[in-house]
Amino acid sequence: MTQVFNFSAGPAVLPREVLLQVQQELTDWHGTGMCVMEMSHRGKEFTQIIHEAEADLRQLMGIPSNYKVLFLQGGAHFQFSMLPLNLARQDDTVDYVNTGHWSKIAIKEARRYANVNIAASSEDRNFSYVPDEAGWKKTANAAYLHYCSNETIGGVEFPFIPDAGNVPLICDMSSNILSKPVDVSKFGLIYAGAQKNIGPSGLTLAIVREDLLGRARPETPTMLDYKVQADGESLYNTPPTFAIYVAGLVFKWLLAQGGVRAIEQRNIEKAALLYETIDASGGFYHCPVDRANRSRMNVAFTLGDESLDDAFLEGAKARELLQLKGHRSVGGMRASIYNAMTVEGVRALTDYMREFASSKG
Amino acid sequence: MTQVFNFSAGPAVLPREVLLQVQQELTDWHGTGMCVMEMSHRGKEFTQIIHEAEADLRQLMGIPSNYKVLFLQGGAHFQFSMLPLNLARQDDTVDYVNTGHWSKIAIKEARRYANVNIAASSEDRNFSYVPDEAGWKKTANAAYLHYCSNETIGGVEFPFIPDAGNVPLICDMSSNILSKPVDVSKFGLIYAGAQKNIGPSGLTLAIVREDLLGRARPETPTMLDYKVQADGESLYNTPPTFAIYVAGLVFKWLLAQGGVRAIEQRNIEKAALLYETIDASGGFYHCPVDRANRSRMNVAFTLGDESLDDAFLEGAKARELLQLKGHRSVGGMRASIYNAMTVEGVRALTDYMREFASSKG
Repeated sequence: MTQVFNFSAGPAVLPREVLLQVQQELTDWHGTGMCVMEMSHRGKEFTQIIHEAEADLRQLMGIPSNYKVLFLQGGAHFQFSMLPLNLARQDDTVDYVNTGHWSKIAIKEARRYANVNIAASSEDRNFSYVPDEAGWKKTANAAYLHYCSNETIGGVEFPFIPDAGNVPLICDMSSNILSKPVDVSKFGLIYAGAQKNIGPSGLTLAIVREDLLGRARPETPTMLDYKVQADGESLYNTPPTFAIYVAGLVFKWLLAQGGVRAIEQRNIEKAALLYETIDASGGFYHCPVDRANRSRMNVAFTLGDESLDDAFLEGAKARELLQLKGHRSVGGMRASIYNAMTVEGVRALTDYMREFASSKG
Repeated sequence: MTQVFNFSAGPAVLPREVLLQVQQELTDWHGTGMCVMEMSHRGKEFTQIIHEAEADLRQLMGIPSNYKVLFLQGGAHFQFSMLPLNLARQDDTVDYVNTGHWSKIAIKEARRYANVNIAASSEDRNFSYVPDEAGWKKTANAAYLHYCSNETIGGVEFPFIPDAGNVPLICDMSSNILSKPVDVSKFGLIYAGAQKNIGPSGLTLAIVREDLLGRARPETPTMLDYKVQADGESLYNTPPTFAIYVAGLVFKWLLAQGGVRAIEQRNIEKAALLYETIDASGGFYHCPVDRANRSRMNVAFTLGDESLDDAFLEGAKARELLQLKGHRSVGGMRASIYNAMTVEGVRALTDYMREFASSKG
């Protein structure tokens, strides 16, 4: 079969070992004669799958016992509504930090349900940095403080966890969850769409501190009430069983790699390879993001001469380096190098980048 | 590998041919070197997958061009909220027919958002029949009329499509969609969780008449607005791509079987085998549902002597006849025989039922 390196921002590359195991077990999971897709979500086989997935995730992230792990549907977009519906009243103030595309969508939805205070924004320099926390204008009694720890499109990543004091800290961690150790106890709620570092799209993870449950507004759709989902142990209705199964295999793969501390080292190495190639290109390639805030997951860069964009992408494709085109809203290039991207894949890309630059430079 | 017959009510058995194709393509879809799970939902490969899935579904169901096909998340439960939020105002009256477990949950959620009129109910005889339409108390200016065409738990199926006049007719078709031809033009909206006759759980299908779009209440979460989903062509956010891919293969499989008219004949044959076995058992087995309303998809039955239930289930399991236990809310047995269940599987079950009855009778 074709060996490709897939730099898609999401849905994204999955560990090869996981895909091979899914393939091997597809028509007969553990001698049951059934595909996981065919199993009742209340049967003993799937119960084992979801319990193991949760236990492995708790181990990987060190999730304290006063946090619930929820396997939900709907992607981060559903969380954008679920959050204010559960944790704010219409006249409450909610604090948001605006660092790019995903922050902006979250803010737009929150404005429909509460008073949004923009505690900080990097829009003044086209979302190329994370504002210094010292200058944030936080609301003392905000219902919560929300930020996006990694902006997938801009390639901007927080190098710190904000200090929200007694205000619940909420994080959209969709595109850098499980890429490094994180102190979960600092958060009220963490959420993440699965399709970057966790598994297939259609699954959304939420990690909620228990004291935040049970606060949903009366008009909240039942399925959007965190307490309903927590009380039902993610089985209030039929969950995306196959996606949970694949996510569980990814968690086991991560444990086998040495956990998030080990994967972080590899992520640092991969990101360094790319940013060094860009910075050493003498302006042939350019990364618009401040050095301290450059994402380890999504490396956004432009070509100094954008008339070479198409040739760059064509040459990449000829080498099976796929999905490198930047998001339509910002242009340029973007290499997403989530946990499952190998160092070998990144080296293939940086080799190509250097060769392309010297052939055109 | 083990050959089993899986009578789960959902997630349920999938066509063997589909699973084998999924397995074969898992790590390399059509020579791309990628698993479908790894593809951008906006790339040309997945665009082809979702367009073919929609086109095949339109052909299978004869969906008129003034209906949108939406690939959503959240299961029927989300539709229970989405429906009144989109199609009713708080002081509107909405008509519901109550024929069992799923009707009741839909009604409970609708009561939070509008005035519910129970147009008809079969609760008086423990949901063992469909009320005669002549006696329904419909509201002349109802915002819509809702019914569940097949009650998965009770095993009760509508043998007719209700006449709602000018009121939009809404149907929860989760457990009998694609099991027989249906005149879509009689409906305002049809919805169905995928995990019975369509594909993996985590995908929900909605077929909406275009004039019903754009009516969502101001407080509706963006993702629960049918118009937003329709305008985004099911790609407003990242959809459950792998589930859509598998559903698309199921649609192609159905077309290869001769479409819904051909599959209906097989479904009639399978249901007849089971009900005849029950009725010919001299009371050893009993089906509580009125003959005219017995489901072709979910055959609910009890043993005359319920102290034999465990022995029946153990004997079945020894023959690899799986997941026959009735829902915890009603007890007894239930054989779900969706499109993907083979006649061979049903014969294996009826053979066993006869032998068990004669060994104990």
